Amino acid sequence: MNYAQLVNQIYTKKSCLCVGLDTDPNKIPKHLLDYEDPVFEFNKRIIDATSDLCVAYKPNIAFYECLGPSGWESLRKTIEYIPKENFTIADAKRGDIGNTARMYAKTFFDTYNFDSITIAPYMGEDSVTPFLEYKDKWGILLAVTSNKGGSDFQQFGGDKPLFKEVVEKANSWATHEQLMYVVGATRGELIADMRKIAPKNFFLVPGVGAQGGTVEDVMKHGKSDEIGLLINSSRGIIYAGSDENFADQARDSAKKVVEQMKHFI
Amino acid sequence: MNYAQLVNQIYTKKSCLCVGLDTDPNKIPKHLLDYEDPVFEFNKRIIDATSDLCVAYKPNIAFYECLGPSGWESLRKTIEYIPKENFTIADAKRGDIGNTARMYAKTFFDTYNFDSITIAPYMGEDSVTPFLEYKDKWGILLAVTSNKGGSDFQQFGGDKPLFKEVVEKANSWATHEQLMYVVGATRGELIADMRKIAPKNFFLVPGVGAQGGTVEDVMKHGKSDEIGLLINSSRGIIYAGSDENFADQARDSAKKVVEQMKHFI
Repeated sequence: MNYAQLVNQIYTKKSCLCVGLDTDPNKIPKHLLDYEDPVFEFNKRIIDATSDLCVAYKPNIAFYECLGPSGWESLRKTIEYIPKENFTIADAKRGDIGNTARMYAKTFFDTYNFDSITIAPYMGEDSVTPFLEYKDKWGILLAVTSNKGGSDFQQFGGDKPLFKEVVEKANSWATHEQLMYVVGATRGELIADMRKIAPKNFFLVPGVGAQGGTVEDVMKHGKSDEIGLLINSSRGIIYAGSDENFADQARDSAKKVVEQMKHFI
Repeated sequence: MNYAQLVNQIYTKKSCLCVGLDTDPNKIPKHLLDYEDPVFEFNKRIIDATSDLCVAYKPNIAFYECLGPSGWESLRKTIEYIPKENFTIADAKRGDIGNTARMYAKTFFDTYNFDSITIAPYMGEDSVTPFLEYKDKWGILLAVTSNKGGSDFQQFGGDKPLFKEVVEKANSWATHEQLMYVVGATRGELIADMRKIAPKNFFLVPGVGAQGGTVEDVMKHGKSDEIGLLINSSRGIIYAGSDENFADQARDSAKKVVEQMKHFI
């Protein structure tokens, strides 16, 4: 999916919601465990209940990988099931030397046909650029993350912290039509800071809901001229309910989040 | 495998060689493609030919992941086939928030039973510590890497570059019996620098052979009181030959590398 298509989808749906598919067999409703592939059955129902409300889905690859080969099969079926107008993000945080990064790009863009993948910047340019060689595919580089340890190294460097160096350098490798940034939502002023140094890039914003950030703060501080935000909620939506009505409850939760976005779009 | 067992293995074999299993179906000898699982058949023969010479094996996870579910099956069989006295490294470079890092630890330590996994430091403490909660399992944190882009961010920060900050902080999270560092081999003085700030930790050293570093330089600059080195060679060993004799040629190549290590151990 290209930049214009993604922006268009956001204006049409009046939503920049991304639903995080952190699907854990231990947390899904019990009645689904009788199916051959409970993880896929859960995702299918969540997708049916939310695909008109959200613009993107973000499976967290760790949750599939830890199930062994069957987890990768659940992932493949999930990606095939997601409607083509929804943007897909492999939340994999990969990062390795050029020839290995190329393998990871092949995995997520060819084998599994994702639109984008999250990338860790520590190994520098040649660990990032192989993901940017695919037409209409995206790299989403970690900049500021919302977890407790996020400040350990991202804020390192005093006046000019590491995350600014990352964004400055990465902006010289690719345009905003290929590269997004992960920007944690727990501190509004950090998002504003990021918007100054990356005025046009999309930000993938985790940390809303379970991790403490508010949608209003993110929209207010982070919006670009063409919105430029994908705000993720995982647990707050997919685990909103735990019984047979879980999909309806997921839809209600998604609606509430989109309601808070609407008047900013 | 614990620290004492690993050190003991190095002294017994007079080797600190790690063989990188970057197995690519496009690069393995043609006659293996007739087997049901060519990747495993290749690895099996390489392991048979080298396990008495090397102390560790390091499958590069990208190469297995990109083959889809069957790649993970080849990986599982490979790990089960490696003799118990050889240390195993999942070269996966994972790094994510606590609950996700826990999933990755489960994948590589429980599902696939690796001894260790490589980790990217960008997301800080809670992305690393879940890997350190397993008895006799190891985290191997990226410090200095040997690729071209390695200096983009690892050298950021002037007098005290980022990689030193990473090592200093990480050393406060775990001892040298749980935590190793990835230290690229292309510059000897960098390894000496690293040894000063991490006197006891094992270093996993890629970049010997195809990437340009020499074994002698690494041994001279990087050795700790108890050796503390795992020197990796991937392509230089596993692709030393390309016909039916490839395993013998791999063995010859491994022998040559070990020959250079012997008088330092």
